[in-house]
Amino acid sequence: MKNFTEAQILFEDYLAKETFKPSPDNLYDPCRHIMAIGGKRIRPVCVLMANELYAPITEDALHAAIAIELFHNFTLIHDDIMDNAPLRRGKQTVHEKWNMPTAILSGDVMNVYAYQHLAKVHPKYLQAILQVFNTTAIEVCEGQQMDMDFEQRDDVSIVEYIHMITLKTSVLLAAALKIGAILGGATDSASNMIYEFGKNIGISFQLKDDYLDAYGSAEKIGKQIGGDILSNKKTYLYLKAKEKANTQQAAMLQELQHYTGADKVEKTLDLFNQLDIPTATQQAKEHYSALAFECLDKIPVQDSRKQDLKILAEYLLEREK
Amino acid sequence: MKNFTEAQILFEDYLAKETFKPSPDNLYDPCRHIMAIGGKRIRPVCVLMANELYAPITEDALHAAIAIELFHNFTLIHDDIMDNAPLRRGKQTVHEKWNMPTAILSGDVMNVYAYQHLAKVHPKYLQAILQVFNTTAIEVCEGQQMDMDFEQRDDVSIVEYIHMITLKTSVLLAAALKIGAILGGATDSASNMIYEFGKNIGISFQLKDDYLDAYGSAEKIGKQIGGDILSNKKTYLYLKAKEKANTQQAAMLQELQHYTGADKVEKTLDLFNQLDIPTATQQAKEHYSALAFECLDKIPVQDSRKQDLKILAEYLLEREK
Repeated sequence: MKNFTEAQILFEDYLAKETFKPSPDNLYDPCRHIMAIGGKRIRPVCVLMANELYAPITEDALHAAIAIELFHNFTLIHDDIMDNAPLRRGKQTVHEKWNMPTAILSGDVMNVYAYQHLAKVHPKYLQAILQVFNTTAIEVCEGQQMDMDFEQRDDVSIVEYIHMITLKTSVLLAAALKIGAILGGATDSASNMIYEFGKNIGISFQLKDDYLDAYGSAEKIGKQIGGDILSNKKTYLYLKAKEKANTQQAAMLQELQHYTGADKVEKTLDLFNQLDIPTATQQAKEHYSALAFECLDKIPVQDSRKQDLKILAEYLLEREK
Repeated sequence: MKNFTEAQILFEDYLAKETFKPSPDNLYDPCRHIMAIGGKRIRPVCVLMANELYAPITEDALHAAIAIELFHNFTLIHDDIMDNAPLRRGKQTVHEKWNMPTAILSGDVMNVYAYQHLAKVHPKYLQAILQVFNTTAIEVCEGQQMDMDFEQRDDVSIVEYIHMITLKTSVLLAAALKIGAILGGATDSASNMIYEFGKNIGISFQLKDDYLDAYGSAEKIGKQIGGDILSNKKTYLYLKAKEKANTQQAAMLQELQHYTGADKVEKTLDLFNQLDIPTATQQAKEHYSALAFECLDKIPVQDSRKQDLKILAEYLLEREK
């Protein structure tokens, strides 16, 4: 059984052999750029580790892992245009380094390359895998649209927020695991259970992300603390504060949205602390982690085979960066 | 056997039953908008007519036809952003009517919906169909990138131009026909032959398009004559003129690129006429039409079954708008 690092190395080696067509350069250089600047390869590794729950990692799982990573990187290129982001993983974003039309088109072609890799899996699995992949890809787009819609709304509920982060970030992790399991020969009920495991890990991970943006160590997370507060993002922390606030606190929270003083983050954190938001966020995170581990327990596979996935999940949820 | 109009009606009826998910509205309203403003549905009808060369139109062919039309409309949304186009089929483009992020994301989700419809075809055809579709989708992106690259270059050859229009516009028509044929049970050699038929029709069609932009009737084509000349587009006409020009004429052609007088179109057409460009363009168009009809003749299917496709091809090539 491979642990995270071993599966990551296997994936990187395989990825290195897969190339885009040589030209047009202006189309494929951005694709090579975004794939080369890396990231932790969490999603493709999840395909491989879920696959190995059942049997040694198959060629089909490697094809699907590459497809998932290509799809993920395509969405990063397009999200960065939509969010007007200048940097990604410390490097210039594609629309900054090249231009917006090229970023749109490079993203588009990477999405098609994702399907090209997916199409290599054995015909007996192809329709099932495509079904999971398509449903998920549609949901990821819906999540991104909801995230943009929320910026314009003042009445977002916590239920809606959880639904949005589920679509925008969790379902792809869940689908990666499910696809790996299907390709390993999992039953429908087992592959659905591993999907639920991934979905809940994803939600918990995102809640931790919200928490760290406000309460993490700038040094450890490598970016400014309070970015979400400064940009008035409707995070779990903000929505929970809004829910728990009395009339006076709600007015203050509202006021802080328009406040531009240097102590905006400090004042907001004071209010969050007053309302015990760190504890509430921690509890929500633990709620979804617990659901995740319950699902993992229920998967009808020997416990020893689940060990590496469990360690990965714990690592993802305990991270401080 | 169905003629173009009959196949078009069948397609529209089928399309009307297929819907996007109801929400988020901001994601799916643009998808519904672009699909509703129509167009002639040439590509999906080609899937159906090629399918009917072999047998009555199958459900699989209808799935693939919708996939091709969704893919085509997704590329229109993204191309319009890249080209900064305000209008499409006389209506506001998606990025104008909504905004750029929504246009990017709606295009993305339509591409996934295309694959969702494609995934419905019978597993015995699925891998073959995906292979044609993916190769083609990649080429369409490459063609669009080449088109953008050409704007910055002064040394584009006619061979490169033909290659670019082949990728940008012809291969999708060719793939539509090939996919329809495969789903009808065509042999590899027959489906490749019908692909070549479509590819050459597509090239011929685009050359006619270049010709009409300069020499058509404004009333009939429904847009200003000389749009390509005014925007210094490197069309077949321009590239052929550059090839045939003597030193003095070449200098004049170069000068006209920077000229902004009200008689820019008139002066350019004078030069084109001097160089006999209308005839040269007509000859090139006929060269590709002839290749197309040779391919159609070679397809091992009774002539009577090819009649409607032949009429469609003639209609596409003889059109004055």
